[in-house]
Amino acid sequence: MKLQFALDLVDVDEAREIIGEVADIIDIAEMGTPFILREGMQAVRDLRRAFPSMTLLADLKIMDAGEHEATLAFQAGADIVTVLGVAHDATIQATLSAASRCGGEVMVDMISVQDIETRGAEVDRMGVHYVCVHTAFDRQTGGRHSVADLEILNQVLQHAQPAVAGGITLDTVRPIAALNPAIVVVGGAIMKARDRRRAALQIKKEMQ
Amino acid sequence: MKLQFALDLVDVDEAREIIGEVADIIDIAEMGTPFILREGMQAVRDLRRAFPSMTLLADLKIMDAGEHEATLAFQAGADIVTVLGVAHDATIQATLSAASRCGGEVMVDMISVQDIETRGAEVDRMGVHYVCVHTAFDRQTGGRHSVADLEILNQVLQHAQPAVAGGITLDTVRPIAALNPAIVVVGGAIMKARDRRRAALQIKKEMQ
Repeated sequence: MKLQFALDLVDVDEAREIIGEVADIIDIAEMGTPFILREGMQAVRDLRRAFPSMTLLADLKIMDAGEHEATLAFQAGADIVTVLGVAHDATIQATLSAASRCGGEVMVDMISVQDIETRGAEVDRMGVHYVCVHTAFDRQTGGRHSVADLEILNQVLQHAQPAVAGGITLDTVRPIAALNPAIVVVGGAIMKARDRRRAALQIKKEMQ
Repeated sequence: MKLQFALDLVDVDEAREIIGEVADIIDIAEMGTPFILREGMQAVRDLRRAFPSMTLLADLKIMDAGEHEATLAFQAGADIVTVLGVAHDATIQATLSAASRCGGEVMVDMISVQDIETRGAEVDRMGVHYVCVHTAFDRQTGGRHSVADLEILNQVLQHAQPAVAGGITLDTVRPIAALNPAIVVVGGAIMKARDRRRAALQIKKEMQ
């Protein structure tokens, strides 16, 4: 089970410093959507240079122009990009095509997907690498939905690996980890901790 | 009826030059999603400085963290930001809250919305400024859907102004303009024209 650390509300220098604090603990460093909107692809290039062997996920939340947007991020150095589960099939397929061409991977963000079971099975059949159930920041409720959504994913995914995101903390990670997702995404619970190493280590320990 | 010119596949210098070519013809300059992902908010700041009186739309396609993402763009100088119609109500409301605080406006992008009638009426009641029916780039079919979708919008919007986007060209703009949307969004048909001024002028003429 991998720990993905989502960074937001930072500039590139801060991101470099903060990832540096926890680089040996986390498995994937995520450049969050607001971070990318603020800094553009230069942020991906800078973090790739600073952390050559770190798995970098660019949370583009692609909704259209999948081939073009995904290629931007892969060429800048991202290993994984996200596409929205509510996007058209053609957009998810175009994102996959860019990933295949660039040697990258695709995570489907299931935020706002009404029927996780049906859509999860559909994107799984398309050949995406990860499917992430995601409780929106704007309606986070302390991980309540994550467990139920992840249980559904576990039932329907045949090939893709399940991931889970949205307000996960040290207090809520255990029942989520018990469902054995491939990736657990944690943002604020590490980001806002006074001692980020300690917070990341504690969460990682709870995941085992 | 306003002509919104969507820019993509450019860097900031090219964008400045291209907007300069048509600045007296277009009404709104849109920084497209891939352009923003590539350049970040610096692009908004640079274009605001270059065109102090131009209406600038930042096509963020907000899906979450509405307050934060919209504020980034408004503070960088955008007049209008986009939020996805498929986002949660809480995200659209948070985007509106940022707009109200910053003196900006909100356009809902209806891309991938299954039921334009129901969702259009819902976001209209939330108080958004524009609702844009949008045929995805990844499944453009020459404007066929735009007319039907716009007819639905015209029936359900009480307060918000209707807009239309997605592959609109000189050949397809007339039946769309006949439905009198507040904003017609044109990208490639101007962008890729050998003579962009001529293309923009011709489209503007067809809209009258």
